[in-house]
Amino acid sequence: MAQILADRRDIDFVLHEQLKVETLASHEKFADFNRKAVDLIVTEARNLAVKEVLPTQTDGDRIGARFDAGAVRVPESFHKAWKALREGEWLAMTEAPEWGGQGMPRTVATAASDYLMGASFAFLMHAGLTHGAGKLVETFGDDRQKRLFLKKLYTGEWTGTMLLTEPEAGSDVGALTTTAVPQPDGTYAITGNKIFISGGEHDLTPNIVHPVLARIEGAPAGTAGISLFLVPKIRVNDDGSLGEPNDVVCTGIEEKMGIHGNATCSIALGGKGGCRGTLLGEANKGMRAMFQMMNDARLMVGHQGLSCASPAYLYAVNYARTRHQGRHLSRLLDKSAPAVPIIQHPDVRRMLSTMKLHVEAMRSLVYLISNYHDRIAVSADAEEKDRLHGMIDFLIPIAKAYVTDRSFEVCSLGVQVYGGYGYVREYPMEQLLRDCRITAIYEGTNGIQAMDLLGRKLGQNGGKPIMDLGEEIRAAISEAAGVDRTAPFAEALEPALVKLEEVARHMGMTAMYGDLLTASAHAYPFMEACGDVVTGWMLLWRARVAAQALAAGARERDAAFYEGQVRSCEFWTRMLLPQALGRMEAVLSGCTAALDMPEDGFGGK
Amino acid sequence: MAQILADRRDIDFVLHEQLKVETLASHEKFADFNRKAVDLIVTEARNLAVKEVLPTQTDGDRIGARFDAGAVRVPESFHKAWKALREGEWLAMTEAPEWGGQGMPRTVATAASDYLMGASFAFLMHAGLTHGAGKLVETFGDDRQKRLFLKKLYTGEWTGTMLLTEPEAGSDVGALTTTAVPQPDGTYAITGNKIFISGGEHDLTPNIVHPVLARIEGAPAGTAGISLFLVPKIRVNDDGSLGEPNDVVCTGIEEKMGIHGNATCSIALGGKGGCRGTLLGEANKGMRAMFQMMNDARLMVGHQGLSCASPAYLYAVNYARTRHQGRHLSRLLDKSAPAVPIIQHPDVRRMLSTMKLHVEAMRSLVYLISNYHDRIAVSADAEEKDRLHGMIDFLIPIAKAYVTDRSFEVCSLGVQVYGGYGYVREYPMEQLLRDCRITAIYEGTNGIQAMDLLGRKLGQNGGKPIMDLGEEIRAAISEAAGVDRTAPFAEALEPALVKLEEVARHMGMTAMYGDLLTASAHAYPFMEACGDVVTGWMLLWRARVAAQALAAGARERDAAFYEGQVRSCEFWTRMLLPQALGRMEAVLSGCTAALDMPEDGFGGK
Repeated sequence: MAQILADRRDIDFVLHEQLKVETLASHEKFADFNRKAVDLIVTEARNLAVKEVLPTQTDGDRIGARFDAGAVRVPESFHKAWKALREGEWLAMTEAPEWGGQGMPRTVATAASDYLMGASFAFLMHAGLTHGAGKLVETFGDDRQKRLFLKKLYTGEWTGTMLLTEPEAGSDVGALTTTAVPQPDGTYAITGNKIFISGGEHDLTPNIVHPVLARIEGAPAGTAGISLFLVPKIRVNDDGSLGEPNDVVCTGIEEKMGIHGNATCSIALGGKGGCRGTLLGEANKGMRAMFQMMNDARLMVGHQGLSCASPAYLYAVNYARTRHQGRHLSRLLDKSAPAVPIIQHPDVRRMLSTMKLHVEAMRSLVYLISNYHDRIAVSADAEEKDRLHGMIDFLIPIAKAYVTDRSFEVCSLGVQVYGGYGYVREYPMEQLLRDCRITAIYEGTNGIQAMDLLGRKLGQNGGKPIMDLGEEIRAAISEAAGVDRTAPFAEALEPALVKLEEVARHMGMTAMYGDLLTASAHAYPFMEACGDVVTGWMLLWRARVAAQALAAGARERDAAFYEGQVRSCEFWTRMLLPQALGRMEAVLSGCTAALDMPEDGFGGK
Repeated sequence: MAQILADRRDIDFVLHEQLKVETLASHEKFADFNRKAVDLIVTEARNLAVKEVLPTQTDGDRIGARFDAGAVRVPESFHKAWKALREGEWLAMTEAPEWGGQGMPRTVATAASDYLMGASFAFLMHAGLTHGAGKLVETFGDDRQKRLFLKKLYTGEWTGTMLLTEPEAGSDVGALTTTAVPQPDGTYAITGNKIFISGGEHDLTPNIVHPVLARIEGAPAGTAGISLFLVPKIRVNDDGSLGEPNDVVCTGIEEKMGIHGNATCSIALGGKGGCRGTLLGEANKGMRAMFQMMNDARLMVGHQGLSCASPAYLYAVNYARTRHQGRHLSRLLDKSAPAVPIIQHPDVRRMLSTMKLHVEAMRSLVYLISNYHDRIAVSADAEEKDRLHGMIDFLIPIAKAYVTDRSFEVCSLGVQVYGGYGYVREYPMEQLLRDCRITAIYEGTNGIQAMDLLGRKLGQNGGKPIMDLGEEIRAAISEAAGVDRTAPFAEALEPALVKLEEVARHMGMTAMYGDLLTASAHAYPFMEACGDVVTGWMLLWRARVAAQALAAGARERDAAFYEGQVRSCEFWTRMLLPQALGRMEAVLSGCTAALDMPEDGFGGK
């Protein structure tokens, strides 16, 4: 039977053959998570995803979150799916059991999320945001805040959000104007207006907990004067019971291109003077708190991209197997030749191959970053931890921006494989394309990710992260060079890595000593060049493992899978790598045409 | 004031400075169309577009075409706009006055359409399809068919469609099964079901004329047995008055991702046995008739792409001028620095520059093809006509596929420039992106365009068209090489052209003598490589004209425009050409990985 959402064979391959996740079980922290347990978790996640979560995908899109006089109603299936998520304790898979979590390795939770988010990422946003809010409470909250909020968030009794954006302060967070005035009881009176608040209002749970960025009266201008507050929709009594409403009002929701299942709210705080919050962490350190959470949020958005691309690929490949149209090209002139499944047409194979390699590379990348986190969690070696942290920091903007851009491309190719049917609502592709488009925008637009890579990550620690990654990639190249079938691909990736390192030096020097404007004009293609090489790395790694398995004599069913890994790497190496090298040339050109364009030269006036 | 829909300065540049359209007026056929007349037409089209057509853009999307019990209602603004199109005689701009046309050069009509379609291409589809149906009647109709239908179509009293696709015969037209049985009165009884019929039913006009592809009883299998019929929704009496309904029933319309303003209909013909049509042209020659019309239809779809991309660009550039956010990078550390318009941020300029060059290159290409048609119309030189026809044939799949792919990219970049606002319905970008997506699918998917380029156009006439184009491009390179500011770009394009010719030979040889499957697997990147070089050609041509004007001393306002042309060419040459060369490398690699992938290796089973 055709698989949907995510390819189980591929998930197993990444977990067990590429990342060898079971080695984590040798550490006490993850002792419960042997292969059998891991496989069971993934199977349960898949069942839940298909049975309970998938209905929220179409309901979310067709019915959507509906706004009426300050209240937002979600479709009925959302309530059922939320209950199932809560009962299965899927909302804080990686957190401590003491707070309602399951203590799972992140790698394993990522595999479970592959199915859950693949079934309906707009619905799962409620879970992701709730987890994120919980993490803020866990990391920065005092005992009382933890006692009142943490378990309720981690168990999904309440949900959480993040109130950051304001009308005049989108990407420029430092410009925000929401104010917090200290009250005699130690709380703060919060006043301001926030927009683009995902899951800001709904009827899934009786309370919603809003971490809010605001400025304490008299605080410094810019980001240095921003603090973080915990603002519940309904006030919480000291015994944990619900009190009075907290003057947190949803004033409207956006009509969007997609993710209709998650209300994007405008929120008025303290319009009647009655909004109270408590300081979360230190005063004026709100941005630092945000930054600590940002890596997770950005990785989640990358995973959302995967959660569009992976179902899109599977729908497309299964459609291409069953849709008969046109003669096989080898019998082009034989009018009696039957129509064949379109998967036999070379151009359809080109599209499917492109989709496949991107889905697989992004899956490996997203899992790998999670795996780095797990390795940090079990490591006693401070240097190793730093090394892994540095590589995570460097990879995050790639996992967010490069992955979501490719996801959109994959979804668009999926539409194309379906032809006219791809454009109509009866089939799942057009929704995936619409939903996916947000991932390049929120949690920092992809352009901002590229600036983050250039401005913060490239020079971090004297450039150590990119050097460490280079070492990892070289090790993978060297292993693949020793395997017959992957040796040519290894040989092709090596000079690309060398060139990327040259590009990185060029970018670093330009930004630091020359011309920040020019460097910034190339930040995006530089990010893409990094993503290209990381993609090549992931595919080469996969192909090497697969080629070794083939050489060792795989079962027939596995053999096709492994062969597919080798072919994906070949396709990337010969079809896409040359373009990647061209992109690096472009960065090295130092072209300033976009900067030199006179503003009126853009026309339109 | 900010311009919308299309940049008038750019339209004037293409018409008068690049293509020198006024030279057509020296021929009797186009004597009325001197510069003053041309400018007046464009101005009138712009006024009509903004005043009457633009309201149909949002109405079409929000209200849409609504289906109820076989009838389709369009929004009220559609009726008003249709009336205005009819009154201004905009529906057959290029056709003979005898049949209700204006006898305009196609180049000029294309400029008018730039505004009209830019305002609402889903609404304008009604006009385009009506013109196409009229052209079929004009070309293949007998006197009676012309008398009864032609003027009514060209004046928009009735509309027209094209009934081609069937559920089991999408891209594979030869598989269609709609039948035509000769009747004693010379008509045919038509029976069958058609799908994806744009504008197949509506209440804009009292009658709809359907050209229908069907198979006469006993006709050969495949495309050789397909005939074309004229099937009105309401039968037409010999005096031109409307008779009885013709058993043409709209059984439903598609829920689509976009172009909601144009109903995509399922049509049942002769369900009650009462559908009658007349043969249009010769029996079994229906496909040939279709092919003759196909170039026009495909060019129109390319223009639809431009009609999404051009407004998207102008909206984005104007938004970027007015949206203030973030400090200028040169004052990054100065916290007192004010927020600047985002057009000053390098990454926004990268996006705008990319959008700009694609819009301008595709505008030049679409106008150029129209201009070739006009030059054919006024030429007495048979060889020259053949040469122009050949180049048109070669450029059509590029103008359809490459242009619509780039249009989608431009719209997506437009969304990105708007950030979160790009994703919400309040702003125009997300609709443009949704609408645009169809253009890569209909009138032959872009994959089919690529196969058309490889299979029919590349080898046409011994490869003469691509050689002729090479000559045109070389002439442009040579002219640009003689101008200081464009010499370096000319120098860069020349080897790219040489390489493209190598790629073309490689593709031709592979397809003819070697391996059609391998060639087909590269058809798409080959089409893209052709499009890349054509883009470079258009931009170099523009830049050379602009650089000469600058050197001759342009007015200040013009100077910025011209400088923008030179910068666009520079940006393409240094940023995008290296990737284009990489794409050519990929084609030359002859990679067969997509073909060699075992079917099970695609996974998902």
